[in-house]
Amino acid sequence: MGKIRTPLVLVNFKTYLEATGKKAVMLAKTVEKACSETDVCMAVAPQHSDVLRVAESVSIPVFAQHVDPVAAGSHTGHMLAEAVKEAGAVGTLINHSERQLRLSDIAAIIKRVHSLKMASVVCANVPEVSMAVAALNPDMIAIEPPELIGTGISVSKAKPEVVTNTIELVRTINKRVTVLCGAGITSGEDVAAALRLGTEGVLVASGVVKAKDPYRVLIQFAEAITKA
Amino acid sequence: MGKIRTPLVLVNFKTYLEATGKKAVMLAKTVEKACSETDVCMAVAPQHSDVLRVAESVSIPVFAQHVDPVAAGSHTGHMLAEAVKEAGAVGTLINHSERQLRLSDIAAIIKRVHSLKMASVVCANVPEVSMAVAALNPDMIAIEPPELIGTGISVSKAKPEVVTNTIELVRTINKRVTVLCGAGITSGEDVAAALRLGTEGVLVASGVVKAKDPYRVLIQFAEAITKA
Amino acid sequence: MGKIRTPLVLVNFKTYLEATGKKAVMLAKTVEKACSETDVCMAVAPQHSDVLRVAESVSIPVFAQHVDPVAAGSHTGHMLAEAVKEAGAVGTLINHSERQLRLSDIAAIIKRVHSLKMASVVCANVPEVSMAVAALNPDMIAIEPPELIGTGISVSKAKPEVVTNTIELVRTINKRVTVLCGAGITSGEDVAAALRLGTEGVLVASGVVKAKDPYRVLIQFAEAITKA
Amino acid sequence: MGKIRTPLVLVNFKTYLEATGKKAVMLAKTVEKACSETDVCMAVAPQHSDVLRVAESVSIPVFAQHVDPVAAGSHTGHMLAEAVKEAGAVGTLINHSERQLRLSDIAAIIKRVHSLKMASVVCANVPEVSMAVAALNPDMIAIEPPELIGTGISVSKAKPEVVTNTIELVRTINKRVTVLCGAGITSGEDVAAALRLGTEGVLVASGVVKAKDPYRVLIQFAEAITKA
Repeated sequence: MGKIRTPLVLVNFKTYLEATGKKAVMLAKTVEKACSETDVCMAVAPQHSDVLRVAESVSIPVFAQHVDPVAAGSHTGHMLAEAVKEAGAVGTLINHSERQLRLSDIAAIIKRVHSLKMASVVCANVPEVSMAVAALNPDMIAIEPPELIGTGISVSKAKPEVVTNTIELVRTINKRVTVLCGAGITSGEDVAAALRLGTEGVLVASGVVKAKDPYRVLIQFAEAITKA
Repeated sequence: MGKIRTPLVLVNFKTYLEATGKKAVMLAKTVEKACSETDVCMAVAPQHSDVLRVAESVSIPVFAQHVDPVAAGSHTGHMLAEAVKEAGAVGTLINHSERQLRLSDIAAIIKRVHSLKMASVVCANVPEVSMAVAALNPDMIAIEPPELIGTGISVSKAKPEVVTNTIELVRTINKRVTVLCGAGITSGEDVAAALRLGTEGVLVASGVVKAKDPYRVLIQFAEAITKA
Repeated sequence: MGKIRTPLVLVNFKTYLEATGKKAVMLAKTVEKACSETDVCMAVAPQHSDVLRVAESVSIPVFAQHVDPVAAGSHTGHMLAEAVKEAGAVGTLINHSERQLRLSDIAAIIKRVHSLKMASVVCANVPEVSMAVAALNPDMIAIEPPELIGTGISVSKAKPEVVTNTIELVRTINKRVTVLCGAGITSGEDVAAALRLGTEGVLVASGVVKAKDPYRVLIQFAEAITKA
Repeated sequence: MGKIRTPLVLVNFKTYLEATGKKAVMLAKTVEKACSETDVCMAVAPQHSDVLRVAESVSIPVFAQHVDPVAAGSHTGHMLAEAVKEAGAVGTLINHSERQLRLSDIAAIIKRVHSLKMASVVCANVPEVSMAVAALNPDMIAIEPPELIGTGISVSKAKPEVVTNTIELVRTINKRVTVLCGAGITSGEDVAAALRLGTEGVLVASGVVKAKDPYRVLIQFAEAITKA
């Protein structure tokens, strides 16, 4: 499994059919190809049932989209961090705006995940929430205004102040956490703008998964990063 | 993938470490062995991240422990029925007492699952809830009094009236649904009692997963079924 | 507190400012006036914090909009059925589409509410969910397709088959439960259509609360009922 | 309505029958009496349906136990901050361990509550969660280890390091927020210990509500505060 480096392009497969099952493997291979050709770190976050097959097929980092705040035991229907780790995940998204969590559960999941040497990427919807998350000391924070998700209107261009405020607030209490941004990222220019604002990468979903040519989009992302 | 027949022994792996990852495969193979030696239908329900590896390793039916009431799309951290199906699941548990759902979501999941030709096993905590579930026309209902789960005190012996009331209420509105019972099932005698009460099988977890010798327990279950 | 009779017009105040605090009392008095002038049974469901002041001000039945499935004890921030009863509520809405509940909680709340001699009005989004609810034996079921709520397009005219299917399914297992319908009810004709389809009343919110002249709307409802 | 001063004794009525309805008023009067005789600021948090009658009966500050992250509108069964304010609440508990919330909702509720000039008391279960909450800039934070709630074993004596770690972490990012502690507080000595550790008051429930003589307990609390 590849090491996670920044700048990072993290591709969230959500529950898109274009990124489910065998198609999840194909898309992950496309991301791996773009990654290896550009030397920009790229990672993927498939559904739980696809983590194993994706992790066995590519050497880039694989993330889960969520894990539950439970320990091994009687928790039918929950996702144990140990299980996605054994399937090959090196980290997990936490508190995505489509899978929001109670504050105490975010704290508990970060602790569990770190105790397993897995990486934590916690999503936040507004700058002050990002600051609150920073207090919990995750590896990465992804600021994503929910109202822009899936719109093709990128946070880095439409709401740059959300990104810069996030970085400023987060830095007052946590110097080491990596800040990503997401929502509406579809072009190299969106990625370039994100880096100019001070982020160390992007969290992207439909901009890649739903693209006619995901490979071409990823190459554009990588070029923007390499230039920056 | 083996066909689901009744009487059925359905083994829920929950989030037990003894039934996670490679150990999930080993336990599934043990269940398959007991199944093939006794000709009693046995099935397993591993975690989402283990469905693929288990389904690729055994020919008995594999169930998911849960799926979400979402269609393909922007649902990060959720489990799409299509995804667990492609991973090899032929059905899913729904509304387990450790993963309870809103009523309208249970109805929506049953519809989604059936449209994918997957089997639905809906759990219920009390007889009147079982009757309500029967109105939604699932393939199977598993009555499980939560207070007995994991205790080793079996519902079929400690609360037989819960099982018989369930069957009676369910039959007033639904003749075709299969009724299982669960909670505290650990011995052949528990299984025999369940069948005598009119169920067509058992949902079992710790009684098998946490047993010193799961194979021996399953053989006892099968013998009780064959005798009945 | 007035007795609940059918046909019933039940006005849900939701969290509209036009129906909060002193304005909740004023609106409840308007409903009471329309009720007393037409002899059609009308009831109101204000917010929890307004139940007392409304119940002290009018003699028509007052409902809570929700109660929690908890008994007296350590349940901070929850709404105890005993508490809204002492404040003057004679019943409660349960499982409104804006406050949906787990199936086992719906069953538990109905039992609690009945043990306190309070009336239960359980909402359902589709006919088969209504049938499931009927198995739990509430006093009333209100069928409300969520997609029509607040639209002014009435369920009784736009989706009559939802109402008739609901009544048919409910009657197969429960002869005594009262069936209401809601969503988009704004005119006397909507109410007349609801009764023609076989319901015994309506659940209405914005159609009354947001009306320029709630009194006039209620009189129209009452006239439609009296004619029917 | 009395002004909120520190040190503060905030009595949470939960859903105890001893503090519901008319008994809520009686207990609030007892708290008011202890407050007026000792000049220590005391406040009460009754259930939503009791806010009005309590606020009309006493001149000490009245809090809600929870409000929802919703604006006025179509939110049946939710508690609007404006509604509890009009009923007489000057503030609200948020995220009590028995009513935990999603992180983004905590942030949204704090903003709503402050825009209405109401006080926010956010509960936290561990020190790092307290620090996260401090980033959201509430008026007060109450640290309460859930495992001690209702035990009679006080956080201030059994887990002093939880309190001191909380204060230390909170102060690194927020100098003005008031820190309370709760869980297991039953005696004057518990309160004295809490103040010695640096808190500015206590959040208490069963220690007062379930006491044989709540008045006597409150006087002991006040004496401990006055001595400190």
